[in-house]
Amino acid sequence: MTVEVVDNLVSDKPAAIVENAGGTSRILLVCEHAGCLLPSSIGSLGLDLADMASHIAWDPGAAELARELSKRLDACLILQRYSRLVFDCNRSLEAVDAIVEESDNIFIPGNSALSVDERLGRYELVYQPFYQVVSSTVTARINAGTPPVIVTIHSFTPVYKGQRRELELGILHDADSRLADSLLPLAETDGGYIVARNQPYSAEDGATHTLATHGVENGLLNVMFEVRNDLLSDKLSVERWAQRLEQLLSVALGNVHEQMRGN
Amino acid sequence: MTVEVVDNLVSDKPAAIVENAGGTSRILLVCEHAGCLLPSSIGSLGLDLADMASHIAWDPGAAELARELSKRLDACLILQRYSRLVFDCNRSLEAVDAIVEESDNIFIPGNSALSVDERLGRYELVYQPFYQVVSSTVTARINAGTPPVIVTIHSFTPVYKGQRRELELGILHDADSRLADSLLPLAETDGGYIVARNQPYSAEDGATHTLATHGVENGLLNVMFEVRNDLLSDKLSVERWAQRLEQLLSVALGNVHEQMRGN
Repeated sequence: MTVEVVDNLVSDKPAAIVENAGGTSRILLVCEHAGCLLPSSIGSLGLDLADMASHIAWDPGAAELARELSKRLDACLILQRYSRLVFDCNRSLEAVDAIVEESDNIFIPGNSALSVDERLGRYELVYQPFYQVVSSTVTARINAGTPPVIVTIHSFTPVYKGQRRELELGILHDADSRLADSLLPLAETDGGYIVARNQPYSAEDGATHTLATHGVENGLLNVMFEVRNDLLSDKLSVERWAQRLEQLLSVALGNVHEQMRGN
Repeated sequence: MTVEVVDNLVSDKPAAIVENAGGTSRILLVCEHAGCLLPSSIGSLGLDLADMASHIAWDPGAAELARELSKRLDACLILQRYSRLVFDCNRSLEAVDAIVEESDNIFIPGNSALSVDERLGRYELVYQPFYQVVSSTVTARINAGTPPVIVTIHSFTPVYKGQRRELELGILHDADSRLADSLLPLAETDGGYIVARNQPYSAEDGATHTLATHGVENGLLNVMFEVRNDLLSDKLSVERWAQRLEQLLSVALGNVHEQMRGN
């Protein structure tokens, strides 16, 4: 609102950014809520900068964590830069919460009473270009005989609807829980942080859309990480989490591959 | 930092915006910390969007309050749109805190170890153009025989260095306290909010630079309002504060003018 500050988040850039495309790791990192830009055809949603900087508009810290992990693993990373309030790229077109009128008690004026055409317009502007980039990257790797492991990186707010959350790391899965099953006992014995399966969100909340669409659908190993965003507020903390996730993934993937060979 | 979101705050717009230039009120409203843009020659200061959206970078809610007050009073309003972290337009060039390396425990990488030339460059880019607009507006009005009353609008953070602040309205003055002296007893008997003289900042903190420069220097009545920014988080609250300040100013100015005629 104030002066024209939120207008400066308005952009015409493509939704997806691909980084380290030639990375040697089998892991393909995806960060659906990496940015909080607003497409110029839509403009401000009637929110102020504090709202646009908050977890309702994107996953603060997730892009930093994904980039650090990409570097450590030498893994390709696909980031999506528009605000989840425009269209949540981790939801299907049909999902009622792909475009929300309210989030964490904040009313979003620009999302009120949208027509079917407006919803479809946002889907085509943000979701589809991002989907195409992820999908074509996955397909190319499958065709090359190096099917990727899909790992999505998210952050969650420490206080939701007034309730403080103790959880620090969520490990989420959809129908195929192989990688999550392998990660969880490792994370639990890792110590030093609070971890849980399918918390603070789960497949039932629609939070595993990317995993289902690009992972399960293609028979690929996949998992979603949710790190509490107050633990990603500085470079050192981000590095620590990237190191943890790198180690967890390396050991867990080794174990899963061993089990698969054993079967 | 994340993706290129903070880069979107980078701008080449002029520092000052004048609104309602033909307003009939004697009051001239000034809002030095109305925006949090970053000049393109300087770019990101190494902060993330959450920091840029916070009170360290600007006065959230102050522009909304000033605009609502401008409408109610039919008063000219001058807003300054660059972040106070680039150069604090409510400080002199000589003030050590015109450019801060740290604010509310946040280190500002882009403000570290600046040369004299860099400091001067920022002064010329942000302070001077803003100063010129305020100064020429004041001079034009004095020359027209309608000397303005300078009223600056600020907001302050509810939590500073971990301490919660109970104060809701600060009424600040520099060497000439005529208007503040008239406002304070009215505000104290108004009820419904906590008010104090020269809190949470004062002339000793250098916070009355604009008042001194454009008000005291020209013998003009002047005052600075500081409203706690969590009380300016929605339109209705902003309207309530604008209504309060409008009424306080109308009565207080009437009383001061009566006293001046009486002397």
